[in-house]
This record gives sequence, structure tokens and C-alpha cells, in this order.
Amino acid sequence: MQPAHRHRVVVIGGGFGGLRVVKALRRSEVDVTLVDRRNFHLFQPLTYQVATGSLSPSDVTYPLRALFGSAPNVDVLLATVTGVDLQGRRVLLETGGAPGSPAELAYDTLVVATGSSYSYFGHEEWREVAGEVKSLESAIAVRSRVLSAFERAEASKDAGERVAELTFVVVGGGPTGVEIAGQIGELAQDMLRHDFSRIHPGDARILLVEMADRILPGFPSSLSVKAARSLRALGVTPTVGRRVVVIDAAGATLEASDQSHERVPARTVIWAAGVHASELAAQLGEASGAEVDHAGRVTVCADLTLPGHPEVLALGDMVRVRDRHGAVLDLPGVAPVAIQQGAYAARAIKRRLHGQSQRPFRYLSKGNLATIGRGRAVAHLGLIRLSGLPAWFIWLGVHIWYLIGYQNRLVVMLRWSASFLSHGRNQGSRIISDLDHRADAGPKG
Amino acid sequence: MQPAHRHRVVVIGGGFGGLRVVKALRRSEVDVTLVDRRNFHLFQPLTYQVATGSLSPSDVTYPLRALFGSAPNVDVLLATVTGVDLQGRRVLLETGGAPGSPAELAYDTLVVATGSSYSYFGHEEWREVAGEVKSLESAIAVRSRVLSAFERAEASKDAGERVAELTFVVVGGGPTGVEIAGQIGELAQDMLRHDFSRIHPGDARILLVEMADRILPGFPSSLSVKAARSLRALGVTPTVGRRVVVIDAAGATLEASDQSHERVPARTVIWAAGVHASELAAQLGEASGAEVDHAGRVTVCADLTLPGHPEVLALGDMVRVRDRHGAVLDLPGVAPVAIQQGAYAARAIKRRLHGQSQRPFRYLSKGNLATIGRGRAVAHLGLIRLSGLPAWFIWLGVHIWYLIGYQNRLVVMLRWSASFLSHGRNQGSRIISDLDHRADAGPKG
Repeated sequence: MQPAHRHRVVVIGGGFGGLRVVKALRRSEVDVTLVDRRNFHLFQPLTYQVATGSLSPSDVTYPLRALFGSAPNVDVLLATVTGVDLQGRRVLLETGGAPGSPAELAYDTLVVATGSSYSYFGHEEWREVAGEVKSLESAIAVRSRVLSAFERAEASKDAGERVAELTFVVVGGGPTGVEIAGQIGELAQDMLRHDFSRIHPGDARILLVEMADRILPGFPSSLSVKAARSLRALGVTPTVGRRVVVIDAAGATLEASDQSHERVPARTVIWAAGVHASELAAQLGEASGAEVDHAGRVTVCADLTLPGHPEVLALGDMVRVRDRHGAVLDLPGVAPVAIQQGAYAARAIKRRLHGQSQRPFRYLSKGNLATIGRGRAVAHLGLIRLSGLPAWFIWLGVHIWYLIGYQNRLVVMLRWSASFLSHGRNQGSRIISDLDHRADAGPKG
Repeated sequence: MQPAHRHRVVVIGGGFGGLRVVKALRRSEVDVTLVDRRNFHLFQPLTYQVATGSLSPSDVTYPLRALFGSAPNVDVLLATVTGVDLQGRRVLLETGGAPGSPAELAYDTLVVATGSSYSYFGHEEWREVAGEVKSLESAIAVRSRVLSAFERAEASKDAGERVAELTFVVVGGGPTGVEIAGQIGELAQDMLRHDFSRIHPGDARILLVEMADRILPGFPSSLSVKAARSLRALGVTPTVGRRVVVIDAAGATLEASDQSHERVPARTVIWAAGVHASELAAQLGEASGAEVDHAGRVTVCADLTLPGHPEVLALGDMVRVRDRHGAVLDLPGVAPVAIQQGAYAARAIKRRLHGQSQRPFRYLSKGNLATIGRGRAVAHLGLIRLSGLPAWFIWLGVHIWYLIGYQNRLVVMLRWSASFLSHGRNQGSRIISDLDHRADAGPKG
């Protein structure tokens, strides 16, 4: 369709990084193909709110085609990338077996931004048992599990079973773990308070397990203390200096530094501990000889290019960046890093077309935020440390601002306002849903 | 928990009928247990909008506990009913195997309102291939199928394959079939218009297949004509006097009255033809000797009680009602019938407690509505017949009015307004989602 001489840029991954690259290349003199397995961008910083029914899936997703449909130089392709042929400069695809689908995409410049998924530290069997809030589907599954646990507790006449149903173990005391534990606390103490006749949802035991000696180890310790206090007010018990050694269908086993073990019977264990880079990172490392670290991240140069392959850029939490002096930058796996790297990559591509060079990538940190519940958050903005309501309002503003798409922003604000005013008792998102119920519609009058 | 002497009412099914019964019995002198397999009420008249991404699942669902949590005499139990022991006056339950869960519920009065599901007229194999819009999960699955079909057409280089992907067959020309066909038409002609570079979504072929000699056979024929015209304007081809004789993964085969056959290659076939009553209807019929018709509906008396069992009432589209003169009332399987029967059942229960009798049930029809698309509908209100924009505004008002819950109503209005103004190009609900993608989060920057 396009004249053959235009520079072809293929971007793999429609997350924060890939999206920014494509946005910055709209209406420029290159042809862009954005490849993703899914047809939507997921606003991952709020996905955990889907897991507790505060937001509905459509509040945190945005169709990729709706973003780029009007840009004549941007193509969106729904396909799974199986590999990259660096020598042949082509991306290998699996499109689901539809006859006539392309099996590859040629590129002049490739941008890889395929992110990460949770790592279970070699315990793949935990993945089957634990819940996650990383993908949309996993968050929906957690929502069903958490709400079903309250339902089964209400229905059960067995006291031990009720305790296990009402015990929630969240593994990992970083921002995601803190957020999900705080949300379960709010759900139990507030939203569900008047919903049951036999159980008191407020009796739920919510353990937040962190290996380090404090939660939010990436924040100043004064804010860790404040976050822990806010969590306790929501019924969450921060449990630090413990690691999880067993996760099974009946609960989790925690090990302290003195090797003592505690068995916690719990029907719901949610994993928010370490992540592992997407498989493409290791593939790029193997094909190019670039270093791959223990978390599966490939090491790129200071200009985000793959060593020896200036036509391939990689970014986001699937890479580590080595600066010109050989030191590896310590960048957190958060959206602002991916967004800034995406903007940098697009600029580099455009400058290179004009024979211009680009200074190395530098990350400008605007601060660190974690929310704990309604009106509770911590913010670390350079010298400024905030907690409570002021921090929460900053968190709220930043997240609404970054939510892509006018309608989503409005709907999320409306939902949150209604939720704030009604203390969450009017939530239409609190449904237990899964595709197993497909054939039969269930009771209907 | 409750004193043993209070009259116990068990209501099976949280659809329109069951919900109305429980609402009317709130704060009355009986104890009510509402049993449903799902924890939410589904607003079925709008479920088809989930199937095309116009509404998100949370817009058409409402948690049952949020409705009745504040009523001290109402219990909600999430469980599957496996049967009713009419002699022992107890409901048999399957609660998912949680230890300590109750296996039965005793009742003094039982109300059964478990609705219906689609019937494939003896072709159970079609259920595996065809999509449906009756349950929430089936509607989400249809959404994924319809959107994926456009994606696969865009990716395919095979002309025949593209035609099959862009052909949608809707079986059944009643209100649901008309609505879903019209929505797919709008999606193709309007919402997706600018989203693709290789295909023109407006080229989609949408067949609405009806056995009778006109679509909407329950409406006056003048409105059928107008509805067909509106459908054609949206790119839908009403195909009447044909029945479907084959549905498989590659398409559908239609048979005309002259026995001629037409094979339609299509990747998406949606079933909206006949329904079959929930299994409990047949069980009640067998246990009581009451008549069960070919659609599986049990025949109840003029006061909605099961013959010989004045303590058991059944209602909604799982029953037929025989009046005092022995004639079977011809009631449509729509929400207003279930709602009026639910109100009647609650009144009957309350009057009986005071030794008062109740006149037989009478259905007061307020009219018939079917929507075709934005600004297009038909309304049959007694002597008044409307079409186009006036009918659509009536349809809109009625549906927003009946949407349960203040927040849902606001959010749906907001979404619809945004959709109306933007011609559907800002929809956050247009995502392809299923639970198979659980473990790996997919690309993310």
C-alpha cells in the first residue's frame, strides 16, 4: 500500500513505552506498524482496582485502533511475535492460523517494548495457585476469587473453613502489593460491610508479606512507617522479614530469618513479588550477544540500541540500560521510565533519518507514588515527602491525567466520585465472572 | 439467627422476576433467602450491547448483595440449585464443595424464577459453534469473536478468507436478533470505520435469518417493514422465510421453503432463535404432575402456583400460565411479564399470611419495543405505532429508567451520550478479552 522507499518502523508491544513511540511517530515521514497480541492498551497502574471491583475492565483499557485509526502512517496488527530475525531484519509472527495471514514483517528500524510478567522464582507451580493483578484477565480472576471467598465464608458452617476463606495473603510489599492489600482491606471494612448476614467481612485477615525489613523498600523509611500505619487502619497486617516458601491451594508457609516457619491457611494468595522480562528480551540477547540478567532483561546501550544493532531499540522493564561509562542504570520498572524511553526512541529514529545523532538516554524521575486506600497514599517527590490525603490527591490527579482517552477519564472520575461519596456501596463492577458459565445463562426471571 | 417461627420464603433466581419478589418482601414479616448461581443481577435487555462493545459488563450488572444488604430479613446465597424436594419442602443445593456449606434450604413458600436459555432445536452441536448474547460471559465471548473477525480480515491476504471473516449470520429475527444485527451494522459502518487500513469494515455482510415471512413477527407488519428498512440502512440484509439447517465452524446453510439451499461461508454465527426453560421447570412438572410444554415450560395455575402445591409459585419465561377457564395465556418471555408476576407473587404471599386470597394474575402489556441502532427503533404501544427517533427515545428512557442502581444509570447515560456524540469512536469497552491469556500479561512497555 505504501511506497516501498519509506522507512519502516515496527514497534512490538502496545504498553506505555510502545504507545509513546507510535504516538510520537504519527504524521512523521516513516511507516509504523504496531504489533500486539491484544487489541487494547492496558493502564497497568490501575489494573489492581479491577481486582477488587472498584473499576471495571473497560475503565483501564483502550483499543489500540481507536488511538491510531486516524493516523495514515500507522498500522495496527494483532499478532503474537514468535521471534526476531536480526540478520534478515524481520519479525516472525503467529497470527492465530487464519489463512492468508502474514508470517513476518520486514523492518528498517525495530522497537521492542514487550514488558515483563511475574516471576515465581523457580516455583512455576505457584503460578497455578496464586492470583495476580498484572494482566486484565488475571485481575478479573482475582476479583472473582476474592469475592467468592466472602461468599463461601458466608455459606460455610465450618469455623476453620470460614477463617481460611477470610484470610488473604499478598506476597510482595512494593507499591503493587501495598495497593492490592489496601484495596482488599477497604473492600472488607467498607464496601462489603453491610452485605452479609453470617460473617463480618471486617474480620478478614489480610497479610502483606515482604522479605525486606520494611514495606515499600524503594521509599524513604519514614514513608514506609506511615504506609504501614495506614494499612493497619484498613485491617492489613504488614509482615516484614519473612519470605514465602510454600504456596498451595490450602494456604502459604512463611519463613522468618531465624528459619522458623509459620503456616497460614488461606484460600486466596496474591503474588506481587518479582517480575521477569518478556521472552523476547532473552532472544534478543542470545541473537546479539548482549548480556541478559537474572530477571531476563537484555542490556542495551546508552541510546537504547541493542549492542551491534543500531537499527534495534528496546525499552521498558524488559531492558537494563548501560551508560557510556559502562555502568548499569538502576531504573525502576514503572510507567514513567517506559514513557520517557519511548519518547527518546521516537526522537532518535527521527533524528537519525536526518543524519543527526542523539545524546544518551537520561531518566528524569518525577517522584514515587503509592496509594493505600481512599484518602491514603505516600508520595516521594525529590525532597518532598507527603502522606495521607495530600499524597492521595497527587496520586489521583496523576492517574486521571495519564488515563488515555477522554471518555475513560470522565467515566473513571465519575465512578471514583460515586465510590468516594457512597463508600463503595454502589459498585456495578463487583461481579463474579468467568467464561466457564458460557453455555447456560443462569437464573433469570 | 432468625426466630424459628417466622415464615420462610426461598426465591430461586435473581433475574427480573425473582428480584421483584424479594424487593416487595423487604421489611415484611417473612424471612427471605434469595438463591442464585451468580452474585449479580444481569440486565438482560441490554446484554447484547456488551456483545458489540457499546456497554461494558459492569454497566449491565448489579451485585445482588448491594441491593439487599441493608434489608435485615433478606439473605443472599450464592449456590446452584440441583433440585426441589416438594414433599420435604426443601431446596437441594450444590455450593461448589466448600466444607461446611449447606446442602439444602427449608422453605414454607418457594418461588422459582430460573428463566430460560437458548434452545438449539435438537442441534446441541450448534451450541459449540454459535455465539449467544444471553449470559454475560456469552456476550463477552461474542464481543471477542466479532472484533477478532475484523482483526483477522485485516491481517489476511486471502480474499475468500476475508469475506468469511466479514460475514456475520444472526439467526432469529425477533427483537434480540434485530438488535444484535443492527449493532454489528453500526459497529461496521460507524464505530470501526476509520480503524483499519486494508479492509473497509463497512463491507461487512450481515445476514439476519428469520423463518417467518417477516422480521419482528410479534409486531404489526407495518413496523416490521420499517425495521427492515432501518436495518438495510445499517448494512444488514434481512433474510426471511429461510431456516438454518447447518451451523459449523465455516459458516451456515440456509434452506428456503422450496427446499433450495444456500451455503454462507461465515466465521461468526450468532444464535437468537428459540429458548428453552431452565431445567427446574421440567423437574417441578415431573414432581407435581404439572404439564410441561415442548419448550420445557411448566404450566402453573392462574395464581402462579404449581398444581397441587399452593406453597410453590413459579414465574417468568420458565412457566406457562393456565387461567381459571383452562386456557393457556400467551405471554411473551420479556422482563415486564416477569416483573409483574414477581410483584403478584409477593403480594400473594403477604395476603396469604393474613388469610386473604388473591385474584388471578393478569398481565398488563405496556407495549413492545425493539431498537435497531442509534436513533432507530420501533415501538408498538397499544394503538400507537412509532418508528425512528421518537421510538428510540422511548426505548432509551424505558431502559435507563429500569436500569437498577443510581451509579449504573449515570454511567450508562454518560457512555451512551459520549457514544452518541462521538459516533462510537471513543469506546473503552471494545476489547478482546478472555481468560486464556491469564498467565502471561502480553506486551507492556
